[in-house]
Amino acid sequence: MGLLEETVAKIEKLDQEKMNQAQERLDSLTKPPGSLGKLEEIAVKLAGITGELFPKVDHKAHIVMAADHGVVAEGVSAFPQEVTTQMVYNFLNGGAAVNVLAKQMAAEVTIVDIGVVNELEAENLVIKKVKAGTDNLAQGSAMSRQEARAALEVGIEVGKDLISQGANLIGTGEMGIGNTTASSAILATITDLSLDEIVGYGTGIDEAGLKKKKQVITQSLAVNQPQVDDGIDILAKVGGLEIAGMAGVMLVAAANRVPVIVDGLISGAAALIAKKLKPQVTGYLISSHKSVEPGHIKIYDLLGLKPLLDLDMRLGEGTGAVLSMNLVEAATKIISDMATFEEAQIIIE
Amino acid sequence: MGLLEETVAKIEKLDQEKMNQAQERLDSLTKPPGSLGKLEEIAVKLAGITGELFPKVDHKAHIVMAADHGVVAEGVSAFPQEVTTQMVYNFLNGGAAVNVLAKQMAAEVTIVDIGVVNELEAENLVIKKVKAGTDNLAQGSAMSRQEARAALEVGIEVGKDLISQGANLIGTGEMGIGNTTASSAILATITDLSLDEIVGYGTGIDEAGLKKKKQVITQSLAVNQPQVDDGIDILAKVGGLEIAGMAGVMLVAAANRVPVIVDGLISGAAALIAKKLKPQVTGYLISSHKSVEPGHIKIYDLLGLKPLLDLDMRLGEGTGAVLSMNLVEAATKIISDMATFEEAQIIIE
Repeated sequence: MGLLEETVAKIEKLDQEKMNQAQERLDSLTKPPGSLGKLEEIAVKLAGITGELFPKVDHKAHIVMAADHGVVAEGVSAFPQEVTTQMVYNFLNGGAAVNVLAKQMAAEVTIVDIGVVNELEAENLVIKKVKAGTDNLAQGSAMSRQEARAALEVGIEVGKDLISQGANLIGTGEMGIGNTTASSAILATITDLSLDEIVGYGTGIDEAGLKKKKQVITQSLAVNQPQVDDGIDILAKVGGLEIAGMAGVMLVAAANRVPVIVDGLISGAAALIAKKLKPQVTGYLISSHKSVEPGHIKIYDLLGLKPLLDLDMRLGEGTGAVLSMNLVEAATKIISDMATFEEAQIIIE
Repeated sequence: MGLLEETVAKIEKLDQEKMNQAQERLDSLTKPPGSLGKLEEIAVKLAGITGELFPKVDHKAHIVMAADHGVVAEGVSAFPQEVTTQMVYNFLNGGAAVNVLAKQMAAEVTIVDIGVVNELEAENLVIKKVKAGTDNLAQGSAMSRQEARAALEVGIEVGKDLISQGANLIGTGEMGIGNTTASSAILATITDLSLDEIVGYGTGIDEAGLKKKKQVITQSLAVNQPQVDDGIDILAKVGGLEIAGMAGVMLVAAANRVPVIVDGLISGAAALIAKKLKPQVTGYLISSHKSVEPGHIKIYDLLGLKPLLDLDMRLGEGTGAVLSMNLVEAATKIISDMATFEEAQIIIE
């Protein structure tokens, strides 16, 4: 049994008894029952995930998986491929949006080269390159089945390391020029949605670019015929290395009963793959923002999640996930620190 | 000229030049232009409010105005009037949701008795009682015009004190059993919306309670005939003391070029009153969550605001405003701390 199978086998159902206790506690606090909405739902979910009524999420870790996409040769992105590399160095220098937001939330950021085309070198970069960018999914498989597995296992290893260091809340993010194309192809494979309902402008293509992007996705599905019930097949044929890596992070977080935050379209596509490999993983996922990408809200529906933030963002990097960490922490404070009606001596018949 | 008129006269337009500079700066940062959505809009707005490109919101103050409502005699609330008093003591003891969230956001909380029925006493309570609860708005005016003015000025005084102590971001919240009825009556006065579009379940009434609440609001409008163009008249006839107080806080924040956060339905109703008194005040308002109360999103529309958080909350106290403080701060960090394309040596033709 390989690392992937071991990890998947470890994922169990949420602790229903602890969730019931959490609900009971929330209903005893000085507020109308349910009036804190999704914060209360998160508190209940965290109890089910961790098996604790008062879990802490004080060690926040955010993982950014970076990889390139051969499909950029088709002209599907507003930015040249070189930007993946340049942005990785920007992350390492602390200059990107995700760095700034993570600092504010006191989250530590780990940058992983899981498949950037260029050779990268830096002390604070985790280099676990499975392949120097995927092949062009419009012309054939993006990667081999073996490479897809290896990339999943990179995610598992990186997540495992952070968890062993104490991480108790994990964010998922990515950098990879071309990756909304791969993510949309995954979503199109898994659902009956039309490409008009799924495909968006990514980092900022125009109408002609959008049309091209849809054509490329249609072609990729025709050429590759990804098998809808086989997550690894979908990943290999129309996915991406960073998408596989994020799916691996989600699986290992679930296996270790650690909550993990889904970001935008690409992280959401990774969650769909993780769900294919083990449906129970969705219990460990926490939503974040509602992206401008039209496919994103469909992914949340498939995962049984609802967005917490409505910020019209479309940046990636896991910026939405990082912004949500604060809300997850708020849920933990609500359940542990609020007074009960009894403590506050408020008597309501 | 009284304090109210002085304050209103001081409110000016936003600094358009500084907003243009902020937009230019945001477009030079390492992200696709506009990809941080509403965070970028907040950064631009803050530049217009403060006249600074890199404003700080590191001194966060949250104000909770508490008052009672004579209309509870009509049976419009799920909770007895006594709960207003009990919750004030809960706030003062730090046990309520707003305390827990404010602590997490490092925001200082000020509790103001602007019109609670009972005599309250506590060292850390700001006692500025204009009237021991409003009169029953279903039977006549909730308060006199003079009392409405006085309550507005209490808000101005409390806000002024906090600003003079350095507050650079202010949240508005309230406690007052019965106050969604008054807020809905204000919204019904100002708009052509039907009561079905406006009135919600408040803290948790049932269907019969909802019907009763709508009848009471209809009656209050018929009895009082509030004048749609006269904010003080609306406040006096169908408003509330804590609503007036929050409107005063918004006016004084705007007069001092300090951003102020609108919370849910009741805080939103206060913002509508503030707008009646000085339309330019809306430039200084920052949105927060989308409440479960149906009227709330209509209020945002009238104020030209869009919600940032989608948490299905309906608690009040300003809990949504406090949760948004973190997002406002994130906007300030984005504009000041991210690298530009030039700094990161990313060249895009």
